[in-house]
Amino acid sequence: MTRPASPAAYRTLDPAGIRAFLAAQPALAARLGGQPDAWRVREVSDGNLNNVFLVDGPAGGVCFKQSLPHVRVDPNWKMPLDRTAFEAAYLRAVRPHVGDLTTELLHFDPDLFVLVVESLDGHVVLRHGLMQGGDWPDAAAAIGRFVARATFPTSPLALKFEDASTLLAPFARNHTLTRITVDLVLTDPYHAHPRNHWLSPELDATVAEFRADPAVRRRVGQMQTRFLTCQQALLHGDLHTGSVMVSGSDTRVIDGEFALPGPIGFDCGLFIGNLLMHLFATLTPEGRARALRDIDQFWTHFRQDFIALWTNAVTHGQSGDAYAAPLFRDDPASLRQVQTQFLDDIETDTIAFAALEIIRRTTGYAHVADFDLIADRTARAARQEAALRLARDMLAHPERTPTIAALGACAADRAR
Amino acid sequence: MTRPASPAAYRTLDPAGIRAFLAAQPALAARLGGQPDAWRVREVSDGNLNNVFLVDGPAGGVCFKQSLPHVRVDPNWKMPLDRTAFEAAYLRAVRPHVGDLTTELLHFDPDLFVLVVESLDGHVVLRHGLMQGGDWPDAAAAIGRFVARATFPTSPLALKFEDASTLLAPFARNHTLTRITVDLVLTDPYHAHPRNHWLSPELDATVAEFRADPAVRRRVGQMQTRFLTCQQALLHGDLHTGSVMVSGSDTRVIDGEFALPGPIGFDCGLFIGNLLMHLFATLTPEGRARALRDIDQFWTHFRQDFIALWTNAVTHGQSGDAYAAPLFRDDPASLRQVQTQFLDDIETDTIAFAALEIIRRTTGYAHVADFDLIADRTARAARQEAALRLARDMLAHPERTPTIAALGACAADRAR
Repeated sequence: MTRPASPAAYRTLDPAGIRAFLAAQPALAARLGGQPDAWRVREVSDGNLNNVFLVDGPAGGVCFKQSLPHVRVDPNWKMPLDRTAFEAAYLRAVRPHVGDLTTELLHFDPDLFVLVVESLDGHVVLRHGLMQGGDWPDAAAAIGRFVARATFPTSPLALKFEDASTLLAPFARNHTLTRITVDLVLTDPYHAHPRNHWLSPELDATVAEFRADPAVRRRVGQMQTRFLTCQQALLHGDLHTGSVMVSGSDTRVIDGEFALPGPIGFDCGLFIGNLLMHLFATLTPEGRARALRDIDQFWTHFRQDFIALWTNAVTHGQSGDAYAAPLFRDDPASLRQVQTQFLDDIETDTIAFAALEIIRRTTGYAHVADFDLIADRTARAARQEAALRLARDMLAHPERTPTIAALGACAADRAR
Repeated sequence: MTRPASPAAYRTLDPAGIRAFLAAQPALAARLGGQPDAWRVREVSDGNLNNVFLVDGPAGGVCFKQSLPHVRVDPNWKMPLDRTAFEAAYLRAVRPHVGDLTTELLHFDPDLFVLVVESLDGHVVLRHGLMQGGDWPDAAAAIGRFVARATFPTSPLALKFEDASTLLAPFARNHTLTRITVDLVLTDPYHAHPRNHWLSPELDATVAEFRADPAVRRRVGQMQTRFLTCQQALLHGDLHTGSVMVSGSDTRVIDGEFALPGPIGFDCGLFIGNLLMHLFATLTPEGRARALRDIDQFWTHFRQDFIALWTNAVTHGQSGDAYAAPLFRDDPASLRQVQTQFLDDIETDTIAFAALEIIRRTTGYAHVADFDLIADRTARAARQEAALRLARDMLAHPERTPTIAALGACAADRAR
């Protein structure tokens, strides 16, 4: 991650190149088994940025991911190659804490910017699965646990500040993808920008209204500032339902290339924002009930696990320099109070970041597929409008949805 | 700052070594003028950490500062040498913005950890000057302007986040001196630690009381967390009245070796905390009136200058990614509202950090000299007790002193 890209060594690998690359790595070749000619190489690129292939051999499979020198879905948008390096670093940082809630890093090549992780063949992308009406009742709780276990141990609540600083510093250099977040999530949707688009003319008035609302802009500015100055922990940075793979009760968070130090509510807010959009895009009462259950499960398990990790650290005198153990070890009542305050603040951030995610995913550059469930354009616009109006209220009238529970109830009402 | 110390090249220079060192630097030798033998070398070490000498020649003077491999006042407390490197980097970062509110960096030697800055011979340390009953009516306003001009331009309010991140990242590695702050300011005074000391037995009950107050400990934990996670701007990190030199209306902030990214209220709070202690240590009504005036002047000018810099940046479309200009350029009323909110939040932080400074400077490791003004031990303990009780209220009952103005009024009342 710290070495500069060496364009001379870089080339985009095609399936034959991928086969040769994997064959040259004994551990990977052994994992696949048999002869390289027999390996099946399938492109499964789905995100906006990178090439992704699944490779299967007689003994097993791997997932091969390579950065391109441009945005995959827009070759005119040039981009540095280092994003797979950040993904590799994120996996190294969080895997010891989250275990099988993410994938195992098998190999990283810093010249080709190739990342090889365990194959999740058989899993489906949670967003696609939900859109097809599938139900993974354990997934949201698992992702809540993932966020707790990826953030608490990488924060100065758990670490001496020197260790937190050393851990987080390299991720603060993830400028390329953080710039995407700053522009596409936090800024562009709130002023005229050529990358923005929406169902027009149906949503024109709604977009004009939230842009003209000074309370929205003030809150957006505040969240820009929190995103850029509040370095609570190492974040995934792009935790939407397309960054989660599920199979039965197995749930894995993938695609950590946006990793950065930031406010924990950003990870929570992106995930809840995507569940809310799924709720508004879903036409069956059962589907909506599941989306509401998932919002509740995610938040409940995140909060519960985060507090449990924290209490355990303080009790064993192994907490970090923030809320230092000597002040709280012998005062469990005070510890509970500061934990409640800390988590309440994350909840407030979460609700605001969820609103930003809804707005940018319906009126900005990159939209979510969930609303494609609604074939009729007028009906689709109506559901997006309802989601946008909720998002506007979440920003301009936070007192109406002060908690995730209140937000769920309000969303259930408006998505009916 | 990024190169490791090379102990082989390092040696502590004595006056003869200092003369030879300066003679070998043509620009410095020319500034001093004449022959090295004729230069006067005077030790003026005053802080706890480093050797400081003033060197005068026929043409002019310089200030020579060198890190020692230990705390100057405690040779058994070993310490890395890199602190003068951070001071040099801080001067390079802020001098373009603050001009003659700090000193000019003339030379830095990364092997000897020697920093040479312009001489302020003729100036006095503000703390000493105030203790002798001197009055510098412009000083507090100047320091308020210094904090505004050192923090706004180094924050993502003014900078693209990439530039803010690149500027701040090296200072996040200032682990040695940040550890001193974390331990001595933010943690040790709140539990039994061998470095703590106070006027005992006179203050024993007061110390026991604030340590036993759960509301104090909760607020201290919160400020630990803000100090370690809220990276608003580049801070001086040790802005007490001993870090300021004055002469007439000329005011200079020195000793930036504690520089780090952090919450702006930390710099403000340390300075106001020291003015409050001076207020409580001062026995004349005139001296107390000047201390109150200084608190007001510092805060008024800090706030005014910070907002003016911000408004100017937004108006010219040159602001950063936090509170991004496209959202506020055409809405001055909203800009004023977010500025008020941002500065109010700094004010809240300032009051809490000022309280921590009072507590650590009367019951922790390094005390302030101001209370030595009171020869009678019982009277001295009574004034420290009053200061400590105010600090406890600032932490446990923030609603009693919600603003700097209210704090000043309350302090004036209790210091009478």
